Amino acid sequence: MKPVTPVLSNGSGWERTSVPHRRRVVMAHGGGGQLTAELIEGIIRPRLSNPLLDTLDDAAVFDVPAGRMAFTTDSYVVQPLFFPGGDIGRLAVCGTVNDLAVCGATPRYLSVGLILEEGLELDVLRRVVDSMAEAAAEAGVRIVTGDTKVVARGQADRLYVQSSGVGILRPDADLGVHRIVPGDRVLVSGTVADHGLAVMLQRENAFGMESGLRSDVAPLAGLVSELLDACANDVVFLRDATRGGLAGVLADLADITGYRLTIDETCIPIRPGTAYAAEMLGLDPLDVANEGKFVAVVRAGAADAALRALRSHPLGSLASEIGSVGGTRDGMCEMVTVVGGRRVIQKPYGEELPRIC
Amino acid sequence: MKPVTPVLSNGSGWERTSVPHRRRVVMAHGGGGQLTAELIEGIIRPRLSNPLLDTLDDAAVFDVPAGRMAFTTDSYVVQPLFFPGGDIGRLAVCGTVNDLAVCGATPRYLSVGLILEEGLELDVLRRVVDSMAEAAAEAGVRIVTGDTKVVARGQADRLYVQSSGVGILRPDADLGVHRIVPGDRVLVSGTVADHGLAVMLQRENAFGMESGLRSDVAPLAGLVSELLDACANDVVFLRDATRGGLAGVLADLADITGYRLTIDETCIPIRPGTAYAAEMLGLDPLDVANEGKFVAVVRAGAADAALRALRSHPLGSLASEIGSVGGTRDGMCEMVTVVGGRRVIQKPYGEELPRIC
Repeated sequence: MKPVTPVLSNGSGWERTSVPHRRRVVMAHGGGGQLTAELIEGIIRPRLSNPLLDTLDDAAVFDVPAGRMAFTTDSYVVQPLFFPGGDIGRLAVCGTVNDLAVCGATPRYLSVGLILEEGLELDVLRRVVDSMAEAAAEAGVRIVTGDTKVVARGQADRLYVQSSGVGILRPDADLGVHRIVPGDRVLVSGTVADHGLAVMLQRENAFGMESGLRSDVAPLAGLVSELLDACANDVVFLRDATRGGLAGVLADLADITGYRLTIDETCIPIRPGTAYAAEMLGLDPLDVANEGKFVAVVRAGAADAALRALRSHPLGSLASEIGSVGGTRDGMCEMVTVVGGRRVIQKPYGEELPRIC
Repeated sequence: MKPVTPVLSNGSGWERTSVPHRRRVVMAHGGGGQLTAELIEGIIRPRLSNPLLDTLDDAAVFDVPAGRMAFTTDSYVVQPLFFPGGDIGRLAVCGTVNDLAVCGATPRYLSVGLILEEGLELDVLRRVVDSMAEAAAEAGVRIVTGDTKVVARGQADRLYVQSSGVGILRPDADLGVHRIVPGDRVLVSGTVADHGLAVMLQRENAFGMESGLRSDVAPLAGLVSELLDACANDVVFLRDATRGGLAGVLADLADITGYRLTIDETCIPIRPGTAYAAEMLGLDPLDVANEGKFVAVVRAGAADAALRALRSHPLGSLASEIGSVGGTRDGMCEMVTVVGGRRVIQKPYGEELPRIC
C-alpha cells in the first residue's frame, strides 16, 4: 500500500491529519484503520523495509526451490523488554532463526506479530523494531510479513512478540535423535546460563544488584553452517538450549534415545560471574535458558573436527565436548561432578525463571 | 518426543508424578520443563496430532515443490474467547487460512503460538484447541508446530493466539492491485459485518441483549478455489475484509489504484438482524470486521461466471456484484446510497470495535 502521508491542513477540501506528537499506543492503533496504517508506515515499515514486506499484503510471496523446508514459531514475553546484551526484538528474531538453524535449515524469511498494550511508549516500539532489523541483518534473514494488535491497559505487559520463520533445509544435513548411537559425543557451543541470569539480574537491579553479565542472545545460523560445512554427515543432532536450559536438552536426549548419557561437569563452559549469580539466586545453571547456544551430538571420529569448526567462529569460541552417549539402556543422563560425585540430570520441573524469553 | 506418562507412585525408585486434578494454568506450565510437557502432551498434541506435529521438534520439516510460496501471520486477541459461530481457536485458523487463500495460495501448514494467562481454566484451553483442530480439518490444513508461553495474572486477558501459515501459490493465479483496470467489477462473497456484530452483541449479553447473529468465521480456501477454477485469469485481486471491514478494503483499493470505485449500496448483502444491530450500536456495517468474506475484482466479461462459481459454494451463496472500477483518477470510493444519494467510503479512522479479532 502507499504510505499514508499526513497532509497539513490547507483550509480546503480533503485532508488527512495525523495527531501531532502522539507518544503512546492507543487502542485505535489496533483497529485496522488509518491509525494502524500510521503505526505501520511511520514506525514499522521504514525500519524493516524490504521488497517483500513493502507490498504490505496480508501474506508475503516468494520463490522456493524444490526440497525440504523448515517452519517454526515462538512467542516472546520476556520481562524486562531490554536487558544487557539484547531485548525482546533481538530475542524474537534470534530465537526463530536458531530453531530453524538447528534443524539444518538455512533461515530465510521471518514474520513478526506484535501485541501492544495500550499506553506503550512509541519510542519503546521504535527501539524494539530497530533491534529486530539489526538482528535480521546479522542473521541474513528478512522480515517479510507481520501483524499488530492492541489490547487495553492491564491486558498485556507492554509488548509481546511472536515470530515465525521458514528456511530451506541443507540437502547434506540429516539430523534427528533417531541417528544417535552409543559412542557419539555431546558438544555444547559455548558458555551456559548467560541469558537467563542476565535477565534475572536486570530485574533485580531495582534492588541495587549489579553485574557485568550479558545475555548470549545471537543468531546461530552462521555457526551451524560452519559445523555442517566441516562435517555434515557426522553431525547427527542439534538443539538450541533455551527454556529448560542445558539440563532440559540432555534429559530429553537420554529419555528419547533410551541411552545413558554421561556428562563431565568440569567440561561445561560457564563464566565465573554467571556461576556466582546462579549460586546467589539458588539456581542450577544447567536449568537456566540460553539464547545463543546449542547442543550437538556428533560421531566420535568427528568430534575434534567439529570442535575446531565451532571454535573458528566467534559465537563458538568456547565450544566444548561435555560427554558421550553410552550403551546402557536406562534413558538417564548422569553427570560426573567437579568433586567426582555423580548425579542425575533431570528436566527442570516447571518455572525456574518465569518470562525469561 | 515421547509422551510424558504420569507414573503412579509405587513407593520405590524413580517416579514422575503429575499434580492430580489440576484445573488451571499455573506459571510453571510455561517454564519449558515437565509441566510444559504435560500441557503439550496432555492437551495440545492429542487434539492436533499429525505426523509433522508429533515429532515435537522446534520446527516442522516438510517437502515443497519448486514454485511460489505464501507466508502470513496474525495475532488474535478477540474478546470474549467464545462467541456465536466461533471462538478464538477457529478464528486463528480461519484468519490465517484466508490470508493465504486470497493470495491465490493453497494453504498447507499452520503454526500456533499461545500466550496463556495464569489461572486460565484448562477446560477453556481444551475447547479452543478442539476448535482449532476442527477448523484445520475443515480447511484442509495441518497445524505442524507451535509454542506456549504463560504470563502472570493481569498480564494478558486469558488467552491470545498467534498463528502463521504457509501455502503454495496456484500457478494459474495472478493477483495484485497492479492488474486492476477501469471497467473491472467488484464482487463481495456474501453478507457483511456479521462477525464484528456477533462478537459485540455477545459482549453486550451482560446487559441482557439477545440476538440470533452469528459470526461468519470460516475458512475460505475452498470458495477461492471454486472462483479461480472457474476464471483464474480474469480474477485480478482478492482481499478478505477483516479489520476495517468492507470500507477498509474498498477505500484502500481506490487509494492504491488511483481509480474511482463506484459502489451500489443496494447490492451490498447484509442480514436484516446485522443491519439492525449496527444501527442500534451506532456503527456503519461497512466498517465492521468480517471473518468469512472477501472482495474480488474481476474482469467485466467474467463477472457472471465468477458470481456463478461463488454462489455454487455454500460459503458464497449470497455473493454479489457491488460495483465497478471507473476511469476517473481521483482514488476515491464513492457509494450510491439506497436513497440515491452519494457518499465517499473512507478507511475507518481507528478502533470502531476493539479486540474484534
